[in-house]
Amino acid sequence: MRVIFIGDVMGEIGQQMLTTYLPKLKSKYRPQLTVVNGENIARGKGITRALYKLILQAGADVVTMGNHTFDKDEIFDFIDSEPKLIRPANYPAKTTPGRGFTTIKVNQTTVGVINLQGRVFLDNIDDPFAKIDTILAELQAKCQVILLDFHAETTSEKLAMGWYTDGRLSAVLGTHTHVQTNDARILPEGTAYLTDAGMTGPYNEILGMRRDRVIERFRTNLPTRFETPTSGPGQLNGCYLEIDEQTGHAKQIKLISITPDRPLMD
Amino acid sequence: MRVIFIGDVMGEIGQQMLTTYLPKLKSKYRPQLTVVNGENIARGKGITRALYKLILQAGADVVTMGNHTFDKDEIFDFIDSEPKLIRPANYPAKTTPGRGFTTIKVNQTTVGVINLQGRVFLDNIDDPFAKIDTILAELQAKCQVILLDFHAETTSEKLAMGWYTDGRLSAVLGTHTHVQTNDARILPEGTAYLTDAGMTGPYNEILGMRRDRVIERFRTNLPTRFETPTSGPGQLNGCYLEIDEQTGHAKQIKLISITPDRPLMD
Amino acid sequence: MRVIFIGDVMGEIGQQMLTTYLPKLKSKYRPQLTVVNGENIARGKGITRALYKLILQAGADVVTMGNHTFDKDEIFDFIDSEPKLIRPANYPAKTTPGRGFTTIKVNQTTVGVINLQGRVFLDNIDDPFAKIDTILAELQAKCQVILLDFHAETTSEKLAMGWYTDGRLSAVLGTHTHVQTNDARILPEGTAYLTDAGMTGPYNEILGMRRDRVIERFRTNLPTRFETPTSGPGQLNGCYLEIDEQTGHAKQIKLISITPDRPLMD
Amino acid sequence: MRVIFIGDVMGEIGQQMLTTYLPKLKSKYRPQLTVVNGENIARGKGITRALYKLILQAGADVVTMGNHTFDKDEIFDFIDSEPKLIRPANYPAKTTPGRGFTTIKVNQTTVGVINLQGRVFLDNIDDPFAKIDTILAELQAKCQVILLDFHAETTSEKLAMGWYTDGRLSAVLGTHTHVQTNDARILPEGTAYLTDAGMTGPYNEILGMRRDRVIERFRTNLPTRFETPTSGPGQLNGCYLEIDEQTGHAKQIKLISITPDRPLMD
Ligand SMILES: [Fe+2]
Ligand SMILES: [Fe+2]
Ligand SMILES: [Fe+2]
Ligand SMILES: [Fe+2]
Ligand SMILES: [Fe+2]
Ligand SMILES: [Fe+2]
Ligand SMILES: [Fe+2]
Ligand SMILES: [Fe+2]
Repeated sequence: MRVIFIGDVMGEIGQQMLTTYLPKLKSKYRPQLTVVNGENIARGKGITRALYKLILQAGADVVTMGNHTFDKDEIFDFIDSEPKLIRPANYPAKTTPGRGFTTIKVNQTTVGVINLQGRVFLDNIDDPFAKIDTILAELQAKCQVILLDFHAETTSEKLAMGWYTDGRLSAVLGTHTHVQTNDARILPEGTAYLTDAGMTGPYNEILGMRRDRVIERFRTNLPTRFETPTSGPGQLNGCYLEIDEQTGHAKQIKLISITPDRPLMD
Repeated sequence: MRVIFIGDVMGEIGQQMLTTYLPKLKSKYRPQLTVVNGENIARGKGITRALYKLILQAGADVVTMGNHTFDKDEIFDFIDSEPKLIRPANYPAKTTPGRGFTTIKVNQTTVGVINLQGRVFLDNIDDPFAKIDTILAELQAKCQVILLDFHAETTSEKLAMGWYTDGRLSAVLGTHTHVQTNDARILPEGTAYLTDAGMTGPYNEILGMRRDRVIERFRTNLPTRFETPTSGPGQLNGCYLEIDEQTGHAKQIKLISITPDRPLMD
Repeated sequence: MRVIFIGDVMGEIGQQMLTTYLPKLKSKYRPQLTVVNGENIARGKGITRALYKLILQAGADVVTMGNHTFDKDEIFDFIDSEPKLIRPANYPAKTTPGRGFTTIKVNQTTVGVINLQGRVFLDNIDDPFAKIDTILAELQAKCQVILLDFHAETTSEKLAMGWYTDGRLSAVLGTHTHVQTNDARILPEGTAYLTDAGMTGPYNEILGMRRDRVIERFRTNLPTRFETPTSGPGQLNGCYLEIDEQTGHAKQIKLISITPDRPLMD
Repeated sequence: MRVIFIGDVMGEIGQQMLTTYLPKLKSKYRPQLTVVNGENIARGKGITRALYKLILQAGADVVTMGNHTFDKDEIFDFIDSEPKLIRPANYPAKTTPGRGFTTIKVNQTTVGVINLQGRVFLDNIDDPFAKIDTILAELQAKCQVILLDFHAETTSEKLAMGWYTDGRLSAVLGTHTHVQTNDARILPEGTAYLTDAGMTGPYNEILGMRRDRVIERFRTNLPTRFETPTSGPGQLNGCYLEIDEQTGHAKQIKLISITPDRPLMD
């Protein structure tokens, strides 16, 4: 099975990059499944129904989220009725709307897609390591292929998740730092691993936010309004995977990174 | 000017990778300057005099450090007398032994090498943004080429440093997360930038520490002894730079990543 | 029911203060139940079997712990066989030895004593708010009086726990900051509340650690060995409670603080 | 010299408590100097010109701030022209409006009042320990009495500041945690010390914010709007000091805490 995964889509430039390049990537890679992280699509903070639709229309099959899931109030209106929209599964079970994983039929194969969030330097939520065990106990019986978007800050927690689930997941793909890492590999037991898929949005800013504002905040510690710009050059980051549907093991993981310095090659 | 930079050398496997591959990289790239981050060379924690010598003998011209600088007491005996060994310049000025930057003559060119440490999710030390201004006020008059090893946790602080110094430094090369990022580029005003150079050490562990221990810590929150293994496959990560000695601007930045999955090509 | 609670006993001076003053406090207050936090009794880090015994012999009925529970390896040998020793109940259920709450018979009354740990600026463990609900579902049927030692860093998390459990617990007594707070009160539904009971140990040091070392660490950011002194003036901090055994509601909460400046009055 | 210090005034209830009780406290204690922390007076976040005036009219001579100093944009309009308004002195020197300390004439005595902010679990600003040395080098020549409002999160950083400046400051009074501590004392060299003066605002909420919202945030990790209530019972917290104008040493420090459970006694 061929899969494309696209990292955190950030604001209007992220939307443009996604709608422009996802079709081209689909022509190039012919993925049977496309997963896009949408936690920053609404001006950097959360998602709206219209923008969720936009991601699907651009070609995504599943939309994952992260620590910005609930930034836009509007999500409470549609998260429960959209099976293709998942948020970190380790938010408190009793009080969190939406779902943390979903399944999708790709030809004859049932694919599970899971979203989890790390805790180091991030929110105090449930244990993602215990949670993945619980979810896998449910999913392994019905899914041949299982993907995880692990939204986390530190390299240690992400690598720990990768090695902990090696052989049990088809891929562990990190998001949240907005910078793509160069450590894509297939772990010994067959799990494709990437610490961070990177971000889809402005190319000349800081994590997709106006760089002057971020620099000012670091230098002055004064309140500065973070804003995601609406024009300027963009980038798209993610990865391409090939997974053996029989074993659920990854056969290939390849970085995708489209920037003004690295245009998409056919 | 051709430069090689090697990220955090971790324990015994890191030493082996460095002594094995740095000579080969030198044959391949013929660098005129080689900088190596040595903060983890002594079993993951600090540096000893013998290991400092080992890095120089392996071919380094300057050794940079980070938050582990003072983990081994022994460093207090030699840091003040070794001009090629630098530690983060923004440690408290009055009480910190050693120096935060150094200059080195490469043919006719005086090169400045600076080490700074970020503060987000790291130690409470002096402001790296204010400090770089102070250091540059001193170095810019005498150096044509100036490199910075910015040892920091978050992508935002590193990107902010890169954009803040764009055109004033030849290169801003991040370290500390132990995972190489795939965002090497030359910023508009001529500064080569890389969020993290990655780590030089074990390939099948977590940040260079035994992965079973790290996973156990995440799962149990019990004390577990972190240890860097002494055998097993290794990796070496860093980058190659070409800098215009006239302008001090970077002409090229290229990732170096040698792993069992990505052997060194001639 | 009369209860004495003593905050974190710290090292040798803490031991001396406890063995000297707990008997005097018992004469003065005639408590039917005495609970002591012992997480720092072994030179500031954890507990040994001998020191656990020492706390019991000094007059404690139950010993609570905190983030230092497992600092001394020795505890793994006896924590499972000592029903009067409890550690934070919200450590991971499957992998943590020992128990997070206990019950004790005081005349005709069954008292529950619970230990929980906060997460803000502390370890990433299970949700203490969800956990207290689970524990209370079990304990409320059999206990008339239930006490909680909530070991946490921030005032917000502790106050939130107090108000969240108001009327369901007899007392929420904070520990961990090592400084007694002056906010003892009975909340509207009957729960006695104190943000922090304070520490039992050295009077002229910082949290019980040698003050010169702590100051040096703040000023230099260099490694300094934290040590708890073995001689010098001491303090003992805690509180006295009166609880209605019929309703489980608190009738009184009074600070106990014995220092050289505030000697114990009869 | 008799001094009253009042901790963080929080929102409308804080304003009412201050205007109601500060006059009564002045009658009772006849202070020659009154200092009030105003960082939360504007609905919990910052200060306006009108509310700054209100604090002065209520009887304050100097207003100190903290991490919320710049929450209300309006402060940029008046902070530079108000010598009695001080913000943490260790904000970046070049970019921060306002001043970090001030002097005031009390009869024949020149009193210095300093505001500093801690760094542990708070903003990355300049070193407060280095900064206090710099400020004291300037103030000690002209002031007989010097007070510090140290706005910090942890007990360790506050205690370290107290012991570090013992004998050099007349008083180190902590703020920020909004809970008064019970450790007021005079350190051996003459500095009055209190880890936290506590908060002036709502009595039945969490740090002055609506308790239902804070509890919901802890339990759900969902966005909840923190709000400071406008009605309900209030509390006022602070301390009373007596300082020897000849030596600058403290002679007395006494807690002030007015709550529905602890009404003001004449
Ligand atoms: Fe994101
Ligand atoms: Fe995120
Ligand atoms: Fe490192
Ligand atoms: Fe490091
Ligand atoms: Fe403790
Ligand atoms: Fe503790
Ligand atoms: Fe405050
Ligand atoms: Fe504050």
